[in-house]
Amino acid sequence: MKILGIDPGFAITGYSVITYEGNKFKLIESGAVNTSKDMPFEDRLACIYDKVTDLIKEYSPDYISVEELFFNNNVTTAIGVAQGRGAVLIAASKNKVPIFEYTPLQVKQAVVGYGRADKKQVSQMVKAILNLDAVPKLDDITDSMAVGICHAHSYNVLSRGLK
Amino acid sequence: MKILGIDPGFAITGYSVITYEGNKFKLIESGAVNTSKDMPFEDRLACIYDKVTDLIKEYSPDYISVEELFFNNNVTTAIGVAQGRGAVLIAASKNKVPIFEYTPLQVKQAVVGYGRADKKQVSQMVKAILNLDAVPKLDDITDSMAVGICHAHSYNVLSRGLK
Repeated sequence: MKILGIDPGFAITGYSVITYEGNKFKLIESGAVNTSKDMPFEDRLACIYDKVTDLIKEYSPDYISVEELFFNNNVTTAIGVAQGRGAVLIAASKNKVPIFEYTPLQVKQAVVGYGRADKKQVSQMVKAILNLDAVPKLDDITDSMAVGICHAHSYNVLSRGLK
Repeated sequence: MKILGIDPGFAITGYSVITYEGNKFKLIESGAVNTSKDMPFEDRLACIYDKVTDLIKEYSPDYISVEELFFNNNVTTAIGVAQGRGAVLIAASKNKVPIFEYTPLQVKQAVVGYGRADKKQVSQMVKAILNLDAVPKLDDITDSMAVGICHAHSYNVLSRGLK
């Protein structure tokens, strides 16, 4: 299966395309959409929407996987990130790619095997699982890989359960 | 000028198209996009995006006016509404219609002349300003009219200031 993992935001949206075949992961592409704070906010959202649409058209992922939003402090940031995430969801819906969401706890459990793992443990495991030379420079990219891996594992478990 | 006023949400998005010429307002169209809770959330957002796009194409508004989000209690609701609002912003950006935001205080001041006006005062003033037979059945529609009226007033003041 081919998965587009996305870590939504409005300043930086991390993304990665990974495949999972015969228990092996492969990283196809990864990067980040950076939107300038000098752009009108609505254009920043449209920019994220366009980029996700382009990624879908270029890589034809079977699934999109995103982290569920979880906030307990800054509501202003939450609203901004939520709108960025909305742009990803609309692109998924318009292009008919099923989208799955996972909590940060589920992602850590799937990648590290431990729900309270820290960022460093997650990035080291992502590097090992995807056989990367180094951990990505941006946390947003690492997180997009992690949520992609999480979907592959979860979906696999789910499919086995259904047989 | 022709204004598309929108009260964003994800279950109900109120909208209205109003014109403002020579100090006179006229209501052209109003309604609400209702998205079912049985639909996947991403499809609900896409539905809002499509409807706003259709309204822009049908009525060619000069401006879109929306209320700024303001939350102090339920973050989960805030995230949902923020994503619905994101759908409106993306539709505005993709169709190159300038979008303006006003706080609830600005809207009430523009419509009633008093920032602490209650819902009933707002709906009665909207009815009078737009010369309606009755107040709209849905608060979401009334609010979309109010934010549209607010833009007309504010923009007018702004233009005069610039002369």
